[in-house]
Amino acid sequence: NAALNPTTSDPPIPVADHRALAQAQNLFITSPYSPGSPLLQPNGAHIFQKLQSFLRAQYPQFGFQEVITPTIYKKSLWQVSGHWDEYAEHMFSVTGRGATGQTSNAEAGQDEEFGLKPMNCPGHCLLFDSTVRSYRDLPIRYADFSALHRNEVSGSLSGLTRVRRFHQDDAHIFCRPDQIQEEIMQTLKFVGMVYDTFNLGPYKLLLSTRPEHHFIGTISEWETAENQLKSALNASGREWSLNAGDGAFYGPKIDIILKDSTGKEHQTATIQLDFQLPQRFNLQYQASPEELETQETAEKDGRNKGVDEGNLRPVIIHRAIYGSLERFMALLIEHYAGSYPFWISPRQAVILALNQTPDVLAHVDKVQKLLSLGAPPLVDGKEVAREKTTPLSLDTIALNIDADTSARPLGKKIKEAREKGYNFIIVVGKEEVERDGVRIQAGSQDAETLFSVFSDTGSEVEVGMGGKK
Amino acid sequence: NAALNPTTSDPPIPVADHRALAQAQNLFITSPYSPGSPLLQPNGAHIFQKLQSFLRAQYPQFGFQEVITPTIYKKSLWQVSGHWDEYAEHMFSVTGRGATGQTSNAEAGQDEEFGLKPMNCPGHCLLFDSTVRSYRDLPIRYADFSALHRNEVSGSLSGLTRVRRFHQDDAHIFCRPDQIQEEIMQTLKFVGMVYDTFNLGPYKLLLSTRPEHHFIGTISEWETAENQLKSALNASGREWSLNAGDGAFYGPKIDIILKDSTGKEHQTATIQLDFQLPQRFNLQYQASPEELETQETAEKDGRNKGVDEGNLRPVIIHRAIYGSLERFMALLIEHYAGSYPFWISPRQAVILALNQTPDVLAHVDKVQKLLSLGAPPLVDGKEVAREKTTPLSLDTIALNIDADTSARPLGKKIKEAREKGYNFIIVVGKEEVERDGVRIQAGSQDAETLFSVFSDTGSEVEVGMGGKK
Ligand SMILES: [Zn+2]
Ligand SMILES: [Zn+2]
Repeated sequence: NAALNPTTSDPPIPVADHRALAQAQNLFITSPYSPGSPLLQPNGAHIFQKLQSFLRAQYPQFGFQEVITPTIYKKSLWQVSGHWDEYAEHMFSVTGRGATGQTSNAEAGQDEEFGLKPMNCPGHCLLFDSTVRSYRDLPIRYADFSALHRNEVSGSLSGLTRVRRFHQDDAHIFCRPDQIQEEIMQTLKFVGMVYDTFNLGPYKLLLSTRPEHHFIGTISEWETAENQLKSALNASGREWSLNAGDGAFYGPKIDIILKDSTGKEHQTATIQLDFQLPQRFNLQYQASPEELETQETAEKDGRNKGVDEGNLRPVIIHRAIYGSLERFMALLIEHYAGSYPFWISPRQAVILALNQTPDVLAHVDKVQKLLSLGAPPLVDGKEVAREKTTPLSLDTIALNIDADTSARPLGKKIKEAREKGYNFIIVVGKEEVERDGVRIQAGSQDAETLFSVFSDTGSEVEVGMGGKK
Repeated sequence: NAALNPTTSDPPIPVADHRALAQAQNLFITSPYSPGSPLLQPNGAHIFQKLQSFLRAQYPQFGFQEVITPTIYKKSLWQVSGHWDEYAEHMFSVTGRGATGQTSNAEAGQDEEFGLKPMNCPGHCLLFDSTVRSYRDLPIRYADFSALHRNEVSGSLSGLTRVRRFHQDDAHIFCRPDQIQEEIMQTLKFVGMVYDTFNLGPYKLLLSTRPEHHFIGTISEWETAENQLKSALNASGREWSLNAGDGAFYGPKIDIILKDSTGKEHQTATIQLDFQLPQRFNLQYQASPEELETQETAEKDGRNKGVDEGNLRPVIIHRAIYGSLERFMALLIEHYAGSYPFWISPRQAVILALNQTPDVLAHVDKVQKLLSLGAPPLVDGKEVAREKTTPLSLDTIALNIDADTSARPLGKKIKEAREKGYNFIIVVGKEEVERDGVRIQAGSQDAETLFSVFSDTGSEVEVGMGGKK
C-alpha cells in the first residue's frame, strides 16, 4: 500500500539465512551460557566496528555528540521514566550479591534494586537536566552506542535478529517545538545517505499520527508537530504514506521500512517524537522572548504544566538509523551474501604462497605487512623496519590481510579463498620474489588498483571509504 | 624500594583533584540513580574515545583482534570460572522480571540467574573453545573494551577512580608455554609506547612469583614461566624488582605502577599469567610433534591432566595497558591539569566574534565548518557547499571547534577561553572578513601551524597524532 523509495535498481536477493553465512565466515557464535547475546568473533567485530565508525564519521556534520552512559540504574529512575511498570516483562533486574551495598541507615533508594537498561533515553534526560539550558543551546543531540538488554522468551531467540542484548545507533534530540521540522528533515537525509551507501532499499516512509482517544498534550500541540513532520516528509522528495491514528500516545512517529526482493519487510530506522518523557523528567529550557509571547496561555495546562517562570519544555526525538546494529548486520550479511564491499570486508585479501622456500615465505611476510599497515617509515630516504615503539596515528586504517603458506596445491587454495569471499587473491612465487611484486589472481576485485602498492610512486592503495590512500 | 623507569624528565604535578577539573570542563556527571557509574558528557566521551581509538590503531601491529562479548552470563558459567563463589561479594546478579523466561520444561540452566560480568576472561575462553585450535594458530590475542561491573560499597565510590562500572582495554593472549617470553616482551614494549605517548611516568616493574604453599601446576612449570618473564624483563632494558612469593596461586604476574611527583602510586597496567582458567575451561590445542616429544610425562599430572591425545593446554595471559579507562582518564585529567594535547583535547579551538555584524557571523560560521570538517569538496575546481548526502570517509577526524558570538567584550571572551583550556583561540572581526583569514590570539598553542588553514595551498592543518593533514 505504501509507496517505495528506490535507493537501488538492484534489490537484494537473500540467498541464504544470515546464520548459515555467518558460520561459514566466522562472524559470531552463540552460547547456552548467554542465550540471545551473540559473541562476535574477530570477523564479526570487524564489520560491527566499521558500521560504528562509519556513523561516527558522519556525526559531526549532523551535529551529534556522543555520550557514554550507565548500564544499570536504580528502580526509582525507571519509575520516573515509566519503564518499571509499563516495560516490566522486558526488563532484567540487577542486585548486588554481596552484603557490601547494604547499610543500616541507607538513604532512600540507596540499596534498592537496579534495572538493566533496555533504552538510553532516561540516562540522556539526566545529562540534559544536569545544567541550565537556554533556547540558544538547542537542539542538543546525544548519540550513544551502549549495549541494551531486553528480555525475550528463550525459545524465540535466533542469530543476530532475535536477541536479548544488542546495540543501537541510538540518539536523542532535545529541541524546541519550532525546530522539529528541520531536525526531521536532517534525519531523513541521514537515513537516505546511509541506505545509499549500503545500496539498500527500496524503503517505505510511514507517518503515524495522534491516536483518537488516549494521548497526552493538547490537540493543537499535536497538529503543529504533525504538520512539521508532513512538511519534512514533503521536503525529502520521497514518497510517504499516512497511518492515521497509529502513533504512540506520547507522540507521532515516522517508521522507515526496508523491503527486500522476496517482499520481506525489515523495520530499521525510526524517528519517534516524545512529548511525555520531558514531562516525566521535568525538563525545561529558558525560552526566548518571542516564544513566551506567542505561546498560548492554554498550553500551560498542557505539556508545559509545572515549568518554572520563563521556561518551556523541550521535545525529545528518539531516532536510530541502523536501528539495532546486530539486526542491521544480519541484513547486510544476507544482502551481500558473503561478498562485502572492500571497506567493511573482514577478508580484504589473502596472499597465497606458491611454495615453501624461504625466499617466497619472506616475500609473503613482507607483502602482508606492507598491505596491512602501509609502507614502513622512511629515515633519510631509506625504509627502516617498523619499530613498535612508534605509535600509529588515529586515522590509520589497517587492512585485514591473511596469508596461506600451507603446502597444498595452488588450485585448492584459490578455490578455498573464493569460497571464503576474499576481495583480493594475491599469489607469490619465485617470479614475484625476483621482480619484487605480486600477482593478482583474475576474478578478485579491482585488481589493477591493488597492484599499484608496488608502483614506483610508493605505497598507494585506493580502496574507497576510509581505506588506504 | 623498586627502581623507577623514567619516561619523562618532567614528572606530573597534580594541581587539583580530577573531580574538580572534570566539573569545570564538563567531562562527566554522577547520579544517585546509578552510583559508581559516571555519565560521560560529550567532552568526557571525546577523551574516552581518543584513548580507545589510539589503542585500536596500535592493535594490528601487536596482533590483537577485537571481539564483542555478552554483558550477562548464566550462573553456571561463573561456576566453571570460579567467580560465582570466589568473587561473590563483587558480583551483581541479574534476573528477568517478566514471566517470559520461565517454561515448565526448562532445560538445565535455562532459567537460572545471570551474573553481570566483572571480567571478560570467561567469554574469551568460550570464543577460544568454539573451534579446534592447532599449535600453528597460537598465539590468539582477543581484545575487548566491554563495560564491566564490580560491586563496591556505596560510601567508597568517587569520581572516575572508585566506580562500579568501568571499561578496561582488556585482552587475553592464548599461547603455547614456549611463547610466553615473546608475548611478555611485546606487552612491555606496548606499555612503554603508551606511557611515552602521554608523557607519563616514571614507573615501576614488579615481578611476583610462585607463592610457597598454595599454587596449581608443577614447580617446573612455574620455573619455566618465571624464567621467561625474567628474560623478557631483562630484554626490556628497564629496571625491575622481584616480589618473591607474591604471585597469585594460578600464575606469576608483572605489575606496572606509575608514580607521580607527589609520590602517589597508580596501579595501571597488569600482565597476569594464568595456568588455572585453561584447566577450568578444559582448553586445548593440537600440539606440535616437537612439543609432544619434549613434554615431560610428569606434566600429564599437572596442568595438562585430562587433555585429549596429542593435545596440550594453552597458557592465558591477562593484560591491560591503561587498566581501567576511567581511572586512566582521571590520571590524565590531573596530569595535564586541563591543558590537553591537541589530539585528545575536547576543546581544540574556539572562534571569538569581535562583533555581531552579519559579515562577521558568516565568516565565523565558515571558519568553524572549515576547521571542524575540512575544506568543502571541489567540483570542477570550485568549492561547493558540503552536501550531507555525501558520506565522509572513516578516517575523517573531525575537530572540536566552538564559537563564541556573544555580545561581550573580547577581553572577557579571551579570559574565559583561556580558563576553559582551549588549545587555540581564534579571533574574527571586520579585518579578518576582508582578507578572508583569521587572527590567532597570542598565547594559544602553535599558532603558525593552524594559520596555514588559510594558505593558498588549500586546507592544511598539522595537528599531530591523527589530526587533519
Ligand atoms: Zn529513546
Ligand atoms: Zn582476564
